[in-house]
Amino acid sequence: MEDPTEGAVVIEGDAAASPFVLVCEHAANAFPARWGDLGLSPAERDAHIAWDPGALGLARALARRLDAALVRATTSRLIYDLNRPPQSKGASAARSEIYTIPGNEALSPAARRDRTRALYLPFHAALRGLLAERLALGQSPVVITIHSFTPLWHGQPRAVEFGIIHDADPALAHAIFETAKAQTTLDARLNEPYSAADEVTHTLALQATPMGLRNAMLEIRNDLIADTSAQEAMAERLAPVLLAALAKLRATEETA
Amino acid sequence: MEDPTEGAVVIEGDAAASPFVLVCEHAANAFPARWGDLGLSPAERDAHIAWDPGALGLARALARRLDAALVRATTSRLIYDLNRPPQSKGASAARSEIYTIPGNEALSPAARRDRTRALYLPFHAALRGLLAERLALGQSPVVITIHSFTPLWHGQPRAVEFGIIHDADPALAHAIFETAKAQTTLDARLNEPYSAADEVTHTLALQATPMGLRNAMLEIRNDLIADTSAQEAMAERLAPVLLAALAKLRATEETA
Repeated sequence: MEDPTEGAVVIEGDAAASPFVLVCEHAANAFPARWGDLGLSPAERDAHIAWDPGALGLARALARRLDAALVRATTSRLIYDLNRPPQSKGASAARSEIYTIPGNEALSPAARRDRTRALYLPFHAALRGLLAERLALGQSPVVITIHSFTPLWHGQPRAVEFGIIHDADPALAHAIFETAKAQTTLDARLNEPYSAADEVTHTLALQATPMGLRNAMLEIRNDLIADTSAQEAMAERLAPVLLAALAKLRATEETA
Repeated sequence: MEDPTEGAVVIEGDAAASPFVLVCEHAANAFPARWGDLGLSPAERDAHIAWDPGALGLARALARRLDAALVRATTSRLIYDLNRPPQSKGASAARSEIYTIPGNEALSPAARRDRTRALYLPFHAALRGLLAERLALGQSPVVITIHSFTPLWHGQPRAVEFGIIHDADPALAHAIFETAKAQTTLDARLNEPYSAADEVTHTLALQATPMGLRNAMLEIRNDLIADTSAQEAMAERLAPVLLAALAKLRATEETA
């Protein structure tokens, strides 16, 4: 019998040694036959509304440098946005930026439940399992979600290159922000281009806060990670920032 | 092949119509053969350290009156306390009140992980699934955890009869507290005999807060719910309190 949850999530390197656990909720722009193409053109299915272009490549390049586990989605955010709770209109958005998503207009409650069951629940159960088992073993995982954003939004260019976003516990985000400003030439900003008020921190609130885990959300402008070599170069800049920020935070805690 | 998670959780009435979802993490004092009796005597395995006596009977009596779903544990809290995260010493306590739990002394990290995997993860995944699917369907579930406490603690009697405990969102707990004082003669108290500072609100923080759900934890002194007729009588007093408190809260929200 087909497992209806099969394939909703992939964990790469679940035994990796680093405390960092990378999460890429918008890694993929696949539209499995079960849900179809939602009435979108190939160009729309390749655009930033369907996924975070470059985020998976960057996340993998970071995971290699950090020896970190990576939990990633396999299906477009337009079918179910794993960084939104089931009651959010954004979980299966009918509009995104300047686009209409025909297959999400007039979505029935039963269809929302089916997508929740097939995508949201297994993804977050897999991440929860990884984190809970590490906690049981006495480890202290650190949750980093990896996103990208479009350089043009409603036609307006965005100057920010590297956004660091926090939810209830800002400590690690602040440490990453300060370290990025000190160690890189990136235009780094706190809580830009989005913040928790935009409902973009659901994964942090769901997975990290209740377990007392350090966490932050990273947003990289997608023109800076458009191909493999750019992703590798960005990972080469960001991996030391993450390591230094965590070390700084832990040193502060130890002297507190 | 045996399903290692089978039996860690039971949902009664998952299609029940009420928004209330009752949760009983300490419903059971069973010690399955897989973990053994932890070196405890029959009297110790029947004491309040192993479970919350009367809580399941009260929860079922409330569920019938409210037409509510009930998510309940099947295994003693001394094997895994489902209201604690995996890193908590209290997840598999080596001491509880005046008792030592031999089978939990010198528990290995691998044993903690196995209990987390077998008990904590499936229990909370089942509760999460119930709540998430209702949210996807456009409903607004309300999470109520049902506990009991011992009338004597380290030899001292406790006067409180009905404790209402909140985590980050106090609104429903306050409404239940005010309603209980107005409508019953119970000695009702807010955040007694425990509060969030005692780490007793993990289920609320894990399941309700990140989803934006109204929630509260109820603690009833166990001498008041010692047998079926007492449980039915207490449910008869508390069910109208819960209904009135939720109605009051919703009326306040609508005029806000």
